[in-house]
Amino acid sequence: MNLTKDHALTLDSADPLAAFRERFVVEDEALIYLDGNSLGRLPRATQSRMRELVDHQWGERLIRGWNEGWLDAPARIGDKIGQLIGARPRSVLIADSTSVNLYKLLLAAVIAQEGRRTIVTDDLNFPSDLYIMQGVAKLTGAEIVVVESDGIHGPVEAIAEALDENSAVLCLSHTAFKSGYTYDLSAVTALAHDVGAVALWDLSHSVGAVEIDLTAAKVDSAVGCTYKYLNGGPGAPAFLYLREDLQEQWQNPVSGWMGQADLFGFGLTYDAAPGLTRFQTGTPPILSLSAIEPGVDLLLEAGMAAVRAKSVALSDYLIGLWEAKLKPLGFRLNSPRDVARRGSHVSLGHEHGLAIDLALIEEMGVLPDFRKPDSIRLGLTPLTTSFADVWEAVERMRLVVSQRRYEAYRTQSVVVT
Amino acid sequence: MNLTKDHALTLDSADPLAAFRERFVVEDEALIYLDGNSLGRLPRATQSRMRELVDHQWGERLIRGWNEGWLDAPARIGDKIGQLIGARPRSVLIADSTSVNLYKLLLAAVIAQEGRRTIVTDDLNFPSDLYIMQGVAKLTGAEIVVVESDGIHGPVEAIAEALDENSAVLCLSHTAFKSGYTYDLSAVTALAHDVGAVALWDLSHSVGAVEIDLTAAKVDSAVGCTYKYLNGGPGAPAFLYLREDLQEQWQNPVSGWMGQADLFGFGLTYDAAPGLTRFQTGTPPILSLSAIEPGVDLLLEAGMAAVRAKSVALSDYLIGLWEAKLKPLGFRLNSPRDVARRGSHVSLGHEHGLAIDLALIEEMGVLPDFRKPDSIRLGLTPLTTSFADVWEAVERMRLVVSQRRYEAYRTQSVVVT
Repeated sequence: MNLTKDHALTLDSADPLAAFRERFVVEDEALIYLDGNSLGRLPRATQSRMRELVDHQWGERLIRGWNEGWLDAPARIGDKIGQLIGARPRSVLIADSTSVNLYKLLLAAVIAQEGRRTIVTDDLNFPSDLYIMQGVAKLTGAEIVVVESDGIHGPVEAIAEALDENSAVLCLSHTAFKSGYTYDLSAVTALAHDVGAVALWDLSHSVGAVEIDLTAAKVDSAVGCTYKYLNGGPGAPAFLYLREDLQEQWQNPVSGWMGQADLFGFGLTYDAAPGLTRFQTGTPPILSLSAIEPGVDLLLEAGMAAVRAKSVALSDYLIGLWEAKLKPLGFRLNSPRDVARRGSHVSLGHEHGLAIDLALIEEMGVLPDFRKPDSIRLGLTPLTTSFADVWEAVERMRLVVSQRRYEAYRTQSVVVT
Repeated sequence: MNLTKDHALTLDSADPLAAFRERFVVEDEALIYLDGNSLGRLPRATQSRMRELVDHQWGERLIRGWNEGWLDAPARIGDKIGQLIGARPRSVLIADSTSVNLYKLLLAAVIAQEGRRTIVTDDLNFPSDLYIMQGVAKLTGAEIVVVESDGIHGPVEAIAEALDENSAVLCLSHTAFKSGYTYDLSAVTALAHDVGAVALWDLSHSVGAVEIDLTAAKVDSAVGCTYKYLNGGPGAPAFLYLREDLQEQWQNPVSGWMGQADLFGFGLTYDAAPGLTRFQTGTPPILSLSAIEPGVDLLLEAGMAAVRAKSVALSDYLIGLWEAKLKPLGFRLNSPRDVARRGSHVSLGHEHGLAIDLALIEEMGVLPDFRKPDSIRLGLTPLTTSFADVWEAVERMRLVVSQRRYEAYRTQSVVVT
């Protein structure tokens, strides 16, 4: 492997997606930003979109904005995200947060799967998903089976064993938030279906980075986040997916007026709207919602095959550099080696992980994030991360350890998102 | 009563809040906007706030924004709203939509009130609130008692009769969305307490327009909207209030990571955060959430006593003009005459209400809204509505009817928000 920075620059020159970086705000070229998997960068088109939205649509059109694009936005932007994940039209909707959407779909699924008592998940799942399951379990009397992993890889065989005729729902993160392990969507969904359970996937850490075909994988239901690889902005509302044939079988337990058949009829009795619309609840936050669209448009323009190809190239390159330069310094690979099972972030563990992370942020101009107990998580966002970024990050990590710069941070603790 | 436009201009000259109008974007001075109770105008300070937020905080500070004000925003802005409604510090939180918040508090209340089976409400309530109750009832087996009104006035005596030792929650809109009837918060909360029920108020149509003292009224819980009189922007997230002594007694059924005690500990088991924080669920939509603050600041600067005084003056003036100029043309007052029981919007019914509403919008440069079956709803927002606006609206309504301009719209139907 060629370890020079020149080689990184050569890879950038040959990168067909390299020009996309200029479509984003990159104010400080010296900052190596590897947290786009937590908060994606700001698309330039979003800046002008927000001015138009605030100054013209809200400021001048006022209430008329609802009939000039706002009311349709959850389904319109949902359909665009649907194109990124192989969903059929009108089967993706923007609504609420990922956790609230998970609650709505999970509770709907548990009720629809009457007579089955367990929710099967794993310990790689995002904690909020587990908390939501615990809330649903408390309410319904369902039991949660948390399948144990090795901390890195999805415990597929143990999941298969845990599933039985008592399983209502299999609820997993497609790509694990710590290790980046990525399940085979089709094969694992089939495990659920084999016993009559339904699958509910959280796509937060895979959408916009991994190729997904929900239709081909026969996925029943899914939720996902828009502020990571979709670049929708801090806390942008989430999406939910429900396969067409389930849209009128499952009932939204949080039944609000935006899911009512005749929204402005103001009838006193809830009458669920046709199709997926019923899974809307309250009035959507239009500023945050509209900000999602330009980032999704950029991914559609790039194409998910090209995005995934670059993601793979970036993570393979990072792992190659780790092996040559960081492994000898005590860094462990806390992500799968098998690229087919890897998302677009790579976690490197180190006994001084937190102190190294802080030194990178405070002294070295690198922004990764830290995940307990020991992982520095490096998010590789194909439209904005360059091979030179990866080279620089590894080189600066090497310096932090070889020069023992992390020592000053060993007693600190910190809140990082 | 002086019916001249000069008199309206004299009232505006004497209005101590008149200067606030310049703090908002008023692009088209000829447009009479009387729908600020549905979507409040854009504060000028919000324009610069949004540029700073998008371009600097998101674009440049990136993930660091969470530790530079975003994580604290739901409680910080919640506390400011708390000052408008007589809430003690740390008892108001911004989260989700009004409907989702109502779901969380109502389900929590029904579970906390174990052994009591009914939710008491009225038919003046906003339909989404009724739909949420119906969802909670389905889930828990609770029964909903909908007390009938005359369509305008809150049926206080009938509510008192409906409440008994089987009542878990009394759930009402403080100000009714159609008629503007406004309950006596203190007296009606006491009716609930008399039988051991808790009160859950929806303040959406009163917050920022009516003086509210939740502490003095001993209110248990409340929700409310920020995009009406608070000028938070389209679909801006809502708020919830929970009295201090109930904050650790009631459990958030939609238990997500933002309500977890150690947010970044990423433990696998939900452990509710102290105080009201536990009623957060997912990541808040920061763009829409931050846009709330400048409008709230303007109300705090004006002071709710002055805001209410102007609201009363505006609606008294409107009702005076209605009596002299519109009543003879067949307009009915579908709002309370008693100012103590009136919020800040006035509904005028007419047999051709919808056609008149459309003619006002299409030909007369007036933007009210329409509510079935026959009401033209005129929202009076004290910081932006002038007495001249009210005079113009009444005069143009008079012309629409006296010149029969509404005839052309009699066969149309329309979706209005």
